[in-house]
Amino acid sequence: MLFSSSPLLIDTLRQRRVKLSYLIDFPAILWSGRANSRNFPANIYPFRASSHFLYFAGFPLENAAIRLYEGRLELFMDNAPKDNALWQGETPQRDQIAELMGADAAYPLTELFNYLEDAATIVVQNPITANEQRQLLNCPLVSAKEPQGIDLELTQAVIHLRLTHDQFAINELRQAAEISVEAHKIGMKATKTAQLEAQVRAAMEGVIMSHNMTCSYNSIVTVHGEVLHNQQYHHPLQPGDLLLADVGAETPMGWAADITRTWPVSGTFSPTQRDIYHLVLKAHDTCIDSIKPGIEYQDIHRMAATVIAEGLVELGILKGTPEDLVEQDAHALFFPHGIGHLLGLDVHDMEDLGDLAGYEPGRVRSQRFGWCFLRLNRPLKPGMLVTIEPGFYQVPAILNNPKNRKKYKTVVNWKRLEQFADVRGIRIEDDVLVTEIEPEILTKNLPTSIAEIEALVQN
Amino acid sequence: MLFSSSPLLIDTLRQRRVKLSYLIDFPAILWSGRANSRNFPANIYPFRASSHFLYFAGFPLENAAIRLYEGRLELFMDNAPKDNALWQGETPQRDQIAELMGADAAYPLTELFNYLEDAATIVVQNPITANEQRQLLNCPLVSAKEPQGIDLELTQAVIHLRLTHDQFAINELRQAAEISVEAHKIGMKATKTAQLEAQVRAAMEGVIMSHNMTCSYNSIVTVHGEVLHNQQYHHPLQPGDLLLADVGAETPMGWAADITRTWPVSGTFSPTQRDIYHLVLKAHDTCIDSIKPGIEYQDIHRMAATVIAEGLVELGILKGTPEDLVEQDAHALFFPHGIGHLLGLDVHDMEDLGDLAGYEPGRVRSQRFGWCFLRLNRPLKPGMLVTIEPGFYQVPAILNNPKNRKKYKTVVNWKRLEQFADVRGIRIEDDVLVTEIEPEILTKNLPTSIAEIEALVQN
Ligand SMILES: [Mn+2]
Ligand SMILES: [Mn+2]
Repeated sequence: MLFSSSPLLIDTLRQRRVKLSYLIDFPAILWSGRANSRNFPANIYPFRASSHFLYFAGFPLENAAIRLYEGRLELFMDNAPKDNALWQGETPQRDQIAELMGADAAYPLTELFNYLEDAATIVVQNPITANEQRQLLNCPLVSAKEPQGIDLELTQAVIHLRLTHDQFAINELRQAAEISVEAHKIGMKATKTAQLEAQVRAAMEGVIMSHNMTCSYNSIVTVHGEVLHNQQYHHPLQPGDLLLADVGAETPMGWAADITRTWPVSGTFSPTQRDIYHLVLKAHDTCIDSIKPGIEYQDIHRMAATVIAEGLVELGILKGTPEDLVEQDAHALFFPHGIGHLLGLDVHDMEDLGDLAGYEPGRVRSQRFGWCFLRLNRPLKPGMLVTIEPGFYQVPAILNNPKNRKKYKTVVNWKRLEQFADVRGIRIEDDVLVTEIEPEILTKNLPTSIAEIEALVQN
Repeated sequence: MLFSSSPLLIDTLRQRRVKLSYLIDFPAILWSGRANSRNFPANIYPFRASSHFLYFAGFPLENAAIRLYEGRLELFMDNAPKDNALWQGETPQRDQIAELMGADAAYPLTELFNYLEDAATIVVQNPITANEQRQLLNCPLVSAKEPQGIDLELTQAVIHLRLTHDQFAINELRQAAEISVEAHKIGMKATKTAQLEAQVRAAMEGVIMSHNMTCSYNSIVTVHGEVLHNQQYHHPLQPGDLLLADVGAETPMGWAADITRTWPVSGTFSPTQRDIYHLVLKAHDTCIDSIKPGIEYQDIHRMAATVIAEGLVELGILKGTPEDLVEQDAHALFFPHGIGHLLGLDVHDMEDLGDLAGYEPGRVRSQRFGWCFLRLNRPLKPGMLVTIEPGFYQVPAILNNPKNRKKYKTVVNWKRLEQFADVRGIRIEDDVLVTEIEPEILTKNLPTSIAEIEALVQN
């Protein structure tokens, strides 16, 4: 990893912890976690520090902790053992790192034992570090989703801060978006000569890797876009297929992008693919145009559902009025997931906290078909970054479900639907920053129009 | 993942467990492990099943277990929940998988509770599954490196089997080698236009990814080859640099390759780089030529050390006779690591077991400088796959160490060494299968000669 600091970073980290000190009056200790071993201890998965740690510490330090109290930052980590230099080279020492992050003090990790009193924490993902957290703080700490007492207070304070992004974060998020845009363009260009999904994926992730970024999640690059979290890449590309690519980069400091585009393998959408693409794009554009402070994200979701229902009525696939159809959840037959989610240090930002971040206090997930997958349900505020990602899918598990066949017998024109068999899955996803004025689409340099996408694929 | 089976796979799995039944007379239960969560539960690192599980089960099933007893194979896993189909598509059911692997019976995971009696196991890497192993078997199970009682007996039996490879394994290992060779060739070709290490890395890993393989370890692609496990890729490529790339593929069933080449960024080795490259290559060739059944791997290591010492004497860097220098560990100033290791399902095969696999029973690691990093110390047998990877490095932590400066004051011509400042690190690594006759270099399609490497880079 690169340890590059700047006055802006140091100042940003200070502002974040000062803001935290306005919200809680007890110390917070945040652990970074450890690398996970893959098939043997020395063969590790690339280390990813806990996002809460990254937010206040900046650098992805392994097996470190920070203590935040009254605006002060104390770093706890061990220097690498001497014989490490042969294998890892000279790595920065604790005191150097402390200086780079603007810490007020720095101690070996064992010293943390003397700074635990009255401290709250958030449980990390790595089970070994999580166990250490439990032992050191001598409390159960079930999971980050169910914090209790001061841990819950800390969690709520961190959510409050991380819900809206400061300038430093926005700069990072823009960089992640920019490289992700480039990856998608290269993916489109690579499709012409590719025979397999895997080859397009390789081209796209290659762009991310060549900029020293990582993928912020496991890429989806598939001709079976109807499998929402498809992580297989072995299908051959056939001329009539649509390729759905959901690929995003993460900066070395952990800030994520999340983009989906869908393009025709042949370089030309079929008439039926154009029809469906247009309605998904209309939902996408309508939602983004509506993003402004104060609007409820669930209303944006409903808007997408309504536009999709409307489009499907126009195409003769659904029957009825869009509003009635949405009321019956008929849109969810084809658009079963939510319109998007928070984006930040995590691609589903703060999803380690369950719905504590995504849902306004007092709100809980709906049980309704479609609505149950809505990951964000809050009024939008300036500085929030959200994805907008409407889609249309023909999911066999949904459309062939006898209960759905019965319930939606009269509202779906199943015969007409058969004519759209070459549209298995389309999604269009962009990253949108809520501002006081116009929303800023961080991923706007990647086209969404059929003409521009076809041109990129044909190139 | 792909579930493709074949009569050869089913027969191979049966042979492996029948052989196991000749070695132990109690049941063995092997767990596959779980995916590790990265920054939130749904954002996981790509799942890698435990290698011991893969050896007997073939497929990388998540959160599954197999019970092996008297040549029988019983599979324990849960079918995916129904609503999983929306996110993951239709996945094969337990009974189908059982058939594909030739299992004798298949049960839900909870049934495992009734099959635990007298069973031995090997602790997996994933801490959550490891904890389940401990709870279910009601025993401490410290780590895979320190098995006790029947767990130790099982471990020794598995080592016995996995030390030499059957035909199915060799086919897989050849495929991993072939794609890794291709990755290195593309890496060499990509160097011409690359500005950063990261770009070469991306080109190389792109080849692996585009063949639906994964990296068997975190790639090393660096102009600072003297940092042995360098996993940073941010350095710019300068014309006078050597680029060291240690990159290997792993097949979907988990079989690994491990290749290192070192090439000049400019396409032409400098005279000093040629000199050192030649001596590393001579060590490489000498070692490979010596591989045959019965030879001690530590003698091959000593051979490499001697050839390197000899070459450094010829270049005027070391003073004395090669044998004396090796006796004093002077070679380790420049070749501090071991000549190689076992290769199979793990890139350092069975290193989860500590030295139980790498070291013949009764042998322990030397404390001596250089020798302490020898990972394999056994007589070779037909069917073993080992790496041969001599190197030359100028490691500041070693060469600037005052103790070494003093101890080796008279044997190193430090002034002469300064003339080789443009050689920070060179390693040449191939994967060599021990056979009754000639050793088979699985990675032989990747050239090692200066002329051929320069041609590939210049292309
Ligand atoms: Mn998304
Ligand atoms: Mn190796």
